[in-house]
Amino acid sequence: MERKGLLLVISGPSGAGKGTLCRALLKSDPALSLSISVTTRSPRPGEVDGTDYFFMEKDSFEKMIKDGQFLEWAFVYGNYYGTPFEFVQESLRLGKDILLEIDIQGALQVKEKFPEAVLIFIAPPSLSVLEARLVSRGADSKEEIRKRLSSTAGEMALARQYDYVVINDKVARAVKNIKAIITAEKSRPRLFKI
Amino acid sequence: MERKGLLLVISGPSGAGKGTLCRALLKSDPALSLSISVTTRSPRPGEVDGTDYFFMEKDSFEKMIKDGQFLEWAFVYGNYYGTPFEFVQESLRLGKDILLEIDIQGALQVKEKFPEAVLIFIAPPSLSVLEARLVSRGADSKEEIRKRLSSTAGEMALARQYDYVVINDKVARAVKNIKAIITAEKSRPRLFKI
Repeated sequence: MERKGLLLVISGPSGAGKGTLCRALLKSDPALSLSISVTTRSPRPGEVDGTDYFFMEKDSFEKMIKDGQFLEWAFVYGNYYGTPFEFVQESLRLGKDILLEIDIQGALQVKEKFPEAVLIFIAPPSLSVLEARLVSRGADSKEEIRKRLSSTAGEMALARQYDYVVINDKVARAVKNIKAIITAEKSRPRLFKI
Repeated sequence: MERKGLLLVISGPSGAGKGTLCRALLKSDPALSLSISVTTRSPRPGEVDGTDYFFMEKDSFEKMIKDGQFLEWAFVYGNYYGTPFEFVQESLRLGKDILLEIDIQGALQVKEKFPEAVLIFIAPPSLSVLEARLVSRGADSKEEIRKRLSSTAGEMALARQYDYVVINDKVARAVKNIKAIITAEKSRPRLFKI
């Protein structure tokens, strides 16, 4: 029986703690590696092409969009960001597990293009816990936090379209849950040649 | 968020070690309980109605078949055996996880009637390991073992219709895998009221 890698998509409302979970996951699972995005923004000091990002000219990026070469892409503050399908598929073929941390719209794009992707919705324990986190982070104004909380309520409904929901009440428990999901997904019949 | 129980169906070719795995699972997961079958055979000494089986007259059993009250049923050596849908659903509603150990035909019947059931195919590491197990068990003749191995090869193809495949090379590892599957399945969006 021959195995292929998994594409694990970690997503959910802002403030749910996706970033912290992903860092903890990458640390605890050496078989897992982060997907490398393509971007048209300029490299920042210390960023290495092919490690932090694949840096690319706008024209080439737009050609890749036209050719359907992205699993998902977005245009943010004047720059393109995208996940290259070819790179992900090649990594999976080599048996690597790939971790992708993206927003909800991006995650649903990925599932549409690549149904084998495993979508995990990271949920805050409750809206009031999320509010407390956003307040203590101190990055947003009261008005921004109010807006964000009301959009979160809507985003929570999209969890139904995910494969799994993990409540991020405690990081260690959430990481354990995600690792169980990886183990379970590696037991799917499609990953075996029987 | 409110949780419901899981129906876990453990199945696979004879000799794959389903019984051993189920006993180990029940021992290590107190939230899990074995499904109680209905049967028309007479109680053996020590067997308790409602614990070992629900004992029932043939007429009542056949009426339950007609009324579609079984998740699966079979007629074996002159007696009926079946899994009562109502009992399983009530247990799940109460949040209990139910374990059902049945043959492949039964498992596929369950999935058809109750798609939320989680089907786990227990596979022997290889046909040669299975052969060695059957020989050392000493319960079957050479001819019976040959027949069984050839039917196993066909049964392995049915693994594709299962949700998961767990290779029973080592009991502890297989139990760990199944427990990861339980954890993952408890993270399904349909089990949450969001």
